[in-house]
Amino acid sequence: MKTANEILNENTEVINGWLDRLMPSETTPPELIHKAMRYSVFAGGKRLRPTLAILAFKWAGGKGNSIFPPACALELIHTYSLIHDDLPCMDDDDLRRGKPTSHKVFGEAIAILAGDALHALAFELAATGGKIAIVSSIARAIGTQGLVGGQVYDMLSERSAPDQEIVEKIHMGKTAALITVSLLVGAMMADAPQDDLEAITKYGQKMGLAFQIIDDILDITADEKTLGKPIGSDIQRKKATYPAVYGIEKSREIALSLIDEAKCALPKNKDNEEFFTIADFIASRGY
Amino acid sequence: MKTANEILNENTEVINGWLDRLMPSETTPPELIHKAMRYSVFAGGKRLRPTLAILAFKWAGGKGNSIFPPACALELIHTYSLIHDDLPCMDDDDLRRGKPTSHKVFGEAIAILAGDALHALAFELAATGGKIAIVSSIARAIGTQGLVGGQVYDMLSERSAPDQEIVEKIHMGKTAALITVSLLVGAMMADAPQDDLEAITKYGQKMGLAFQIIDDILDITADEKTLGKPIGSDIQRKKATYPAVYGIEKSREIALSLIDEAKCALPKNKDNEEFFTIADFIASRGY
Repeated sequence: MKTANEILNENTEVINGWLDRLMPSETTPPELIHKAMRYSVFAGGKRLRPTLAILAFKWAGGKGNSIFPPACALELIHTYSLIHDDLPCMDDDDLRRGKPTSHKVFGEAIAILAGDALHALAFELAATGGKIAIVSSIARAIGTQGLVGGQVYDMLSERSAPDQEIVEKIHMGKTAALITVSLLVGAMMADAPQDDLEAITKYGQKMGLAFQIIDDILDITADEKTLGKPIGSDIQRKKATYPAVYGIEKSREIALSLIDEAKCALPKNKDNEEFFTIADFIASRGY
Repeated sequence: MKTANEILNENTEVINGWLDRLMPSETTPPELIHKAMRYSVFAGGKRLRPTLAILAFKWAGGKGNSIFPPACALELIHTYSLIHDDLPCMDDDDLRRGKPTSHKVFGEAIAILAGDALHALAFELAATGGKIAIVSSIARAIGTQGLVGGQVYDMLSERSAPDQEIVEKIHMGKTAALITVSLLVGAMMADAPQDDLEAITKYGQKMGLAFQIIDDILDITADEKTLGKPIGSDIQRKKATYPAVYGIEKSREIALSLIDEAKCALPKNKDNEEFFTIADFIASRGY
């Protein structure tokens, strides 16, 4: 039985190889934008979203390499959203994964364009899967009812008192939507039946929400070196987080209970071991 | 025989109706982002790109309403690119189509997110066409070898002397790529044969390049009220434009000759009248 780190590490290596082959090289004109895109994509990261897509693909019986370009698409979208989130007019972060953020290195204009280009390239790669439903699902997950919506609620929350409903909307949009669609893309690429798509969606929503709650807790309890970015920044900005609404202990309880719900959502007749391992890993990051 | 204005006006009305139905309403939460998206989409505009998609659809024998969502997708992409181009760190424009730009009304963060959300919604609408090749074509046209690439060359050009090769790259990317793929989307939705796709691509590239050259000329010769934005801004920024490289008269000649090439690219056995009318209209804007 593999540990979560073994699962993540072996997939990270494969995914990085595919990302390198699928993205334009730094010597392809216009060079500057390709440098900026690669800088952020290869600045580290656990490759959680493409790994989830690959796991779901295999879980649903998928074989071969067709999953890799759509899986990489999900990492490109994640990276685009981080670049835009870090901009001075948004979260104004200078560090990401321990390195200077895109706009600190390339300036704001190129950072915005690098995000835009990763966004477009993601759809080009997603389309290679040949399934229009995958394109629609990704588009919905990253629009105003998903990723962008979460970011909007997040920004607006800085101006008002933390609120249970809003904090769940933020987390479902900013984190759970992309995690869920990553699993869905994997299962869809393997032509999983509707029941399994629904099960994996529920697993993703619960696990993705738990993931972001733990992230909120880490922002308070972790040290800067482990986190790769300044700690306590959520409190400073008066962000609506789970700890701000429920306190740290209660937030941990909610996260652990979501992890249990995530596991229980998976069909009894399938081999869910790796998804259990990943879910437990998400939960254990909180300590 | 219809005039270009008649063709554009009748299509604008239909397209605006579809855009209104296909976009989330201003009362859909999170309201602010939907307000911002609608503000820019309904700030005016000739709807040239969706009109070209509709004309190409009919030209290739397409029937019914399936073209409208993908056609609207092209207008959303055009709008997203304008919002991002107008940002302070890019072209820093306060006016667009005679109205304050998105970031002047909603602030930079919401302007960036509105662009991102339009980008995502465009792919959701494009996918409703059910054709994966349409998604791929749009994604390529708006990435680093198209729209984003053109914008990067444009920014870099401000630092160096105007150059023939660069100015063509800027215009092919910033303008011709999206105009060409608009025509292509229309023809693909009507299942046009490969020969016709190639012909319409060539028409689009030549006409799109001419369109941008005329735009460059208008930036110098038009008055602010007609243009809806300050005139002479390209010169002020030392942008690489056709007039900067070739002078106004020679630029006009190049544009007119491109218009002729565009017309000649169309197949002899088809009814090309509306495409001729549009091409002549593009050319006549220069006077």
